[in-house]
Amino acid sequence: MTDLRWKTSVTKVEPNKVSIRGYPVDKLMGKISFAQVIYLVLTGNMPSAEVGKLVDAIFVSSVDHGASPPSVLAARTVASTGAELNAAIASGVLAISKYHGGAIQEAMHLFLDIARRMEEGKKSETDAVWDVLNEMKEKGKRASGFGHRIHTEDPRTKRLFNLAQELDLAGKHIQIALAVEKSLKDMLGKPLPINVDGAIAAVLCDLDLPSEIGNAFFIIARVPGLVAHIHEEKIRMRPMRKIHPQDFEYDGPEEREL
Amino acid sequence: MTDLRWKTSVTKVEPNKVSIRGYPVDKLMGKISFAQVIYLVLTGNMPSAEVGKLVDAIFVSSVDHGASPPSVLAARTVASTGAELNAAIASGVLAISKYHGGAIQEAMHLFLDIARRMEEGKKSETDAVWDVLNEMKEKGKRASGFGHRIHTEDPRTKRLFNLAQELDLAGKHIQIALAVEKSLKDMLGKPLPINVDGAIAAVLCDLDLPSEIGNAFFIIARVPGLVAHIHEEKIRMRPMRKIHPQDFEYDGPEEREL
Amino acid sequence: MTDLRWKTSVTKVEPNKVSIRGYPVDKLMGKISFAQVIYLVLTGNMPSAEVGKLVDAIFVSSVDHGASPPSVLAARTVASTGAELNAAIASGVLAISKYHGGAIQEAMHLFLDIARRMEEGKKSETDAVWDVLNEMKEKGKRASGFGHRIHTEDPRTKRLFNLAQELDLAGKHIQIALAVEKSLKDMLGKPLPINVDGAIAAVLCDLDLPSEIGNAFFIIARVPGLVAHIHEEKIRMRPMRKIHPQDFEYDGPEEREL
Amino acid sequence: MTDLRWKTSVTKVEPNKVSIRGYPVDKLMGKISFAQVIYLVLTGNMPSAEVGKLVDAIFVSSVDHGASPPSVLAARTVASTGAELNAAIASGVLAISKYHGGAIQEAMHLFLDIARRMEEGKKSETDAVWDVLNEMKEKGKRASGFGHRIHTEDPRTKRLFNLAQELDLAGKHIQIALAVEKSLKDMLGKPLPINVDGAIAAVLCDLDLPSEIGNAFFIIARVPGLVAHIHEEKIRMRPMRKIHPQDFEYDGPEEREL
Repeated sequence: MTDLRWKTSVTKVEPNKVSIRGYPVDKLMGKISFAQVIYLVLTGNMPSAEVGKLVDAIFVSSVDHGASPPSVLAARTVASTGAELNAAIASGVLAISKYHGGAIQEAMHLFLDIARRMEEGKKSETDAVWDVLNEMKEKGKRASGFGHRIHTEDPRTKRLFNLAQELDLAGKHIQIALAVEKSLKDMLGKPLPINVDGAIAAVLCDLDLPSEIGNAFFIIARVPGLVAHIHEEKIRMRPMRKIHPQDFEYDGPEEREL
Repeated sequence: MTDLRWKTSVTKVEPNKVSIRGYPVDKLMGKISFAQVIYLVLTGNMPSAEVGKLVDAIFVSSVDHGASPPSVLAARTVASTGAELNAAIASGVLAISKYHGGAIQEAMHLFLDIARRMEEGKKSETDAVWDVLNEMKEKGKRASGFGHRIHTEDPRTKRLFNLAQELDLAGKHIQIALAVEKSLKDMLGKPLPINVDGAIAAVLCDLDLPSEIGNAFFIIARVPGLVAHIHEEKIRMRPMRKIHPQDFEYDGPEEREL
Repeated sequence: MTDLRWKTSVTKVEPNKVSIRGYPVDKLMGKISFAQVIYLVLTGNMPSAEVGKLVDAIFVSSVDHGASPPSVLAARTVASTGAELNAAIASGVLAISKYHGGAIQEAMHLFLDIARRMEEGKKSETDAVWDVLNEMKEKGKRASGFGHRIHTEDPRTKRLFNLAQELDLAGKHIQIALAVEKSLKDMLGKPLPINVDGAIAAVLCDLDLPSEIGNAFFIIARVPGLVAHIHEEKIRMRPMRKIHPQDFEYDGPEEREL
Repeated sequence: MTDLRWKTSVTKVEPNKVSIRGYPVDKLMGKISFAQVIYLVLTGNMPSAEVGKLVDAIFVSSVDHGASPPSVLAARTVASTGAELNAAIASGVLAISKYHGGAIQEAMHLFLDIARRMEEGKKSETDAVWDVLNEMKEKGKRASGFGHRIHTEDPRTKRLFNLAQELDLAGKHIQIALAVEKSLKDMLGKPLPINVDGAIAAVLCDLDLPSEIGNAFFIIARVPGLVAHIHEEKIRMRPMRKIHPQDFEYDGPEEREL
């Protein structure tokens, strides 16, 4: 023992035994889904089946969004130089930042701030929303989690909110997100719909998760998508090609049903 | 259209519609697990429920292994300097390399090579295994996927193989892995048991997945564990502390049952 | 030509000709030092011989600071897993952040802020320094660029300021840095000396360089040091060793003179 | 002291004293160039003024090559998402790989291999070169360090070799590189000229530097160029723009003289 001794509460490793937040990992395997174990390892708590299902849907919603996001372009660019898989993934993860996938944490702050004003300031939802939006307008700040370059009605947002409802997990932060969407439309004179970042943010707030790990949900969800693009780049394209950022065409399977 | 036009078969994005390998993502949400969607996006094929369950168990098996792996130490070291979450994750991913989590692809090559010799060379399993091991010995190469610094009987390996059996998905590569383990013991005079990398490699071969994405399964599994450690570093430790690589103690929940 | 056409003013590449900010690179080679060319490529201007010499000294000052900084530990940890050189460097660069090497930009803001108050607010240096320090104290903010865990009188700071003097390049920001050091001592009752980050920040302000590239000077300086450590890790240490963050000993050449 | 105690020969840090490979850093500042100190920290030896000048020219030669290399595109893509400077640099460094800037080490192996055959096998230069090239042809391997997409006569190669000559530092490996270039032309029926990677490789061999750090020379040289592009991206472009990989135009200073 030295004076540098420290403590960790994530995982206990003993000879022939590995316990994640107290649960032997071999007992989890085959019984608990990856999404549930992600929730467990991040929060320290085993989620209910319902929470597990909602978290699962969050990850599924964000697994990929085609070849145009900068994370994919950075990852493909690095892969194209003959780099290792992990280097290309790391490069993609570094592109998940402020303007791309990095809005979840900020949107959580927004919704939590409004909820706090409602509770502490005894304000109505509408008043709290307008107060915050007006303050942001004055500072020239945009609302994180709203607006999308391609989707006017993001199918992932709608499905996520419906699922939260079905699972009886929808709470006040989803309400607040919808109220912000409404007020933004009134303020701007045109719709600025909740995007998938904003929807995830609202759901994570309703699940009482800390905002500091908000962006992690997007990153964890997107890594498999990055791998798919890196793998495609490596097996299908020639090295060092010029990667056009939007002039590509989908040639995968036709739309199909489950 | 330009002469740089290219094609991708991963995801089709249209206004208000996102289809992963042909499946609208909002149809997948709430129905298909994250593990299944990872398999889908990586391979282009929707896995059966059984395959989904086995892949789920692979990810669960490798979500975390405590604070001592270099990926965790690199991620915590970067987090400790006040870096963003994604920078710390990227650093951790860069440490998942040749000697740490990077053995899956090589172990897959080993098992596929033995299977090929059995089929093409009409050799018995035992002969093919010994041929390969002797060749490796001559070249001074070690068998990837065997041996562990802490575990003599890795609980994850056993559970993974049992689960493959239960789900009727165990095939010849698991057999080959066990035969290699047996021959290594005879060759070395002491056991060098299949570790979790080797076990995952055998299962991925039996699932007919390409070896090029073998290491991706470990990386995808481990990113959530890295996030848990980064988050703990940020909320529990002071910045710029000296991070001892082994003098730490687990102080999380006692062992508990599902 | 497409509607994505964009412009860059860094380097012009034509067949058999490469011009950095207007200068053919083969004309620079052998005539202009690397430090000068770094200044040129970053700012667009060819530095005088004196400025080149001062910038050279900045880079020399920060090339390495032993094995304890987190950038070195992260880079060695990644190198130890068998990763490629560039992956280990990238990991080290990711650790050059807020609390480690990331103070130059903030210290530049501090000195520029004080200079602005002196000029716009017609304040004396002393008044402007105290105003800023008091405001920072109220907000609980620490002054970036001051204090060091090991050095009470950083030899690099002294040499850098002396050199600026000798080269007739010392200006008001070095004066301000010294005034802040003095006031901090009065405020805290103990010395909090200018560290090398603070010294570089003052010099860069006097050279009229933009604060946005302040941290770049440290990163550029430190990359060669990271490479030296990565190379030592690879040729001298066994893979996957436990890297103690402070229990190491220097066994290189004895002190020697030029 | 613990059983993890280790040794390092790079830098000794004591209170108020920092010694790089034995030289107090404040004694180096203002006397020795950054390029010389890079050589010192990498190799442990202080280079002569001549060697320092040649190494300086290597770094100058590779500081930037316009906006089209994948390292620049990856770094700009990450910068465009609002990421920190160091994350964008790291991403660029990860793209300096096998097919881009990663050829120096391999070209050094090629030249060293030919030199060894001449010495050990008592072969003429021509015979050794042809032996190696024929073996590579059989294996379908290309010669690293030869050929360029844009330059038929790389101005950097010529200047570097001339400078080595002027400084009396040109040795047998530059001769070998020229002999390989000649034989490749005969073999292929068209010229495949030495590119800057190949030229640096030959010079580094003549300077007796280990091939393991060959690629480091390119990475160290290019980091400042990456910073210039990242800075331009941040101050001149809007976030999240689509970055076309070749449809850009130089609009910096006209060609100018020193």
